[in-house]
Amino acid sequence: MTTSTNETQIIADSEVPLVRIIREFDAPPEKVFRAHVEPDLFVQWSGPRGYELRLDHFDCRTGGSFRYVMVGDGFEGRFRGCFHEVRPEEVIVQTFTFEGFPDGVALERIMFEDLGNGRTRLTSTSLVDSFAGRDEFLASGMDVGVREGYERLDDLLAR
Amino acid sequence: MTTSTNETQIIADSEVPLVRIIREFDAPPEKVFRAHVEPDLFVQWSGPRGYELRLDHFDCRTGGSFRYVMVGDGFEGRFRGCFHEVRPEEVIVQTFTFEGFPDGVALERIMFEDLGNGRTRLTSTSLVDSFAGRDEFLASGMDVGVREGYERLDDLLAR
Repeated sequence: MTTSTNETQIIADSEVPLVRIIREFDAPPEKVFRAHVEPDLFVQWSGPRGYELRLDHFDCRTGGSFRYVMVGDGFEGRFRGCFHEVRPEEVIVQTFTFEGFPDGVALERIMFEDLGNGRTRLTSTSLVDSFAGRDEFLASGMDVGVREGYERLDDLLAR
Repeated sequence: MTTSTNETQIIADSEVPLVRIIREFDAPPEKVFRAHVEPDLFVQWSGPRGYELRLDHFDCRTGGSFRYVMVGDGFEGRFRGCFHEVRPEEVIVQTFTFEGFPDGVALERIMFEDLGNGRTRLTSTSLVDSFAGRDEFLASGMDVGVREGYERLDDLLAR
């Protein structure tokens, strides 16, 4: 499906209840950024293979918000949050909740780093208020969704 | 100025980079909640005595956002964030940034607890991504603003 050899690193921080995800892409920051903010592009790659993302709304700008349903493999989950800051081709800071656990809220920061030669390093951090919550999140199978989502993003960026 | 004997507790969490603020009020949750969400009321109490809050916008609902300037005593600071969730008389979850440190973002949760007899316990938590950042926040003089703000809120609630 994909020819990428870029590896997704998922790291549990040792000091604070945070997960750090690092992934490189064979595309420049403006293209990787666009795939994160434009609803038509975002739905094409976000989430595991075989899942469909149906947007309720997705207004990726400073002060905007989002809500969507992810459907597939007998699963139907709703997710929502607000965009604290969207700094073009630099950073997106947002909140994130899986509505199945409405009191669980993560503060996420997605950083776009220009590696030159048309390549980008994406570093995404997800901060929650307890190590137990962070470790549950890590054990939830989220890694499959993250890895497959980024492979789908490779495909989209290569088109 | 105020007849309240309610004390403000400001606690640094020992496990995670979080500050917890606990304060009781001689007013029912619906009244304390309203003072947090209605712009006309919010500007009357938020911040230290002698400071003026000028709202750019303040749309306290799920998916809304805010930005304001705090002016007083030779200081002029801009603050902004987005409202992740506003659950009437229960909880407000929001982000918070002092624009003087644009990369510093806190995830805040304000909980309204009905103590009966027309009293409310407010518990507010502020989570950041490092202990150093949390400790700087604690040492910034924020305690004065919090304590005086809540005394001003006492006065407003008593009217």
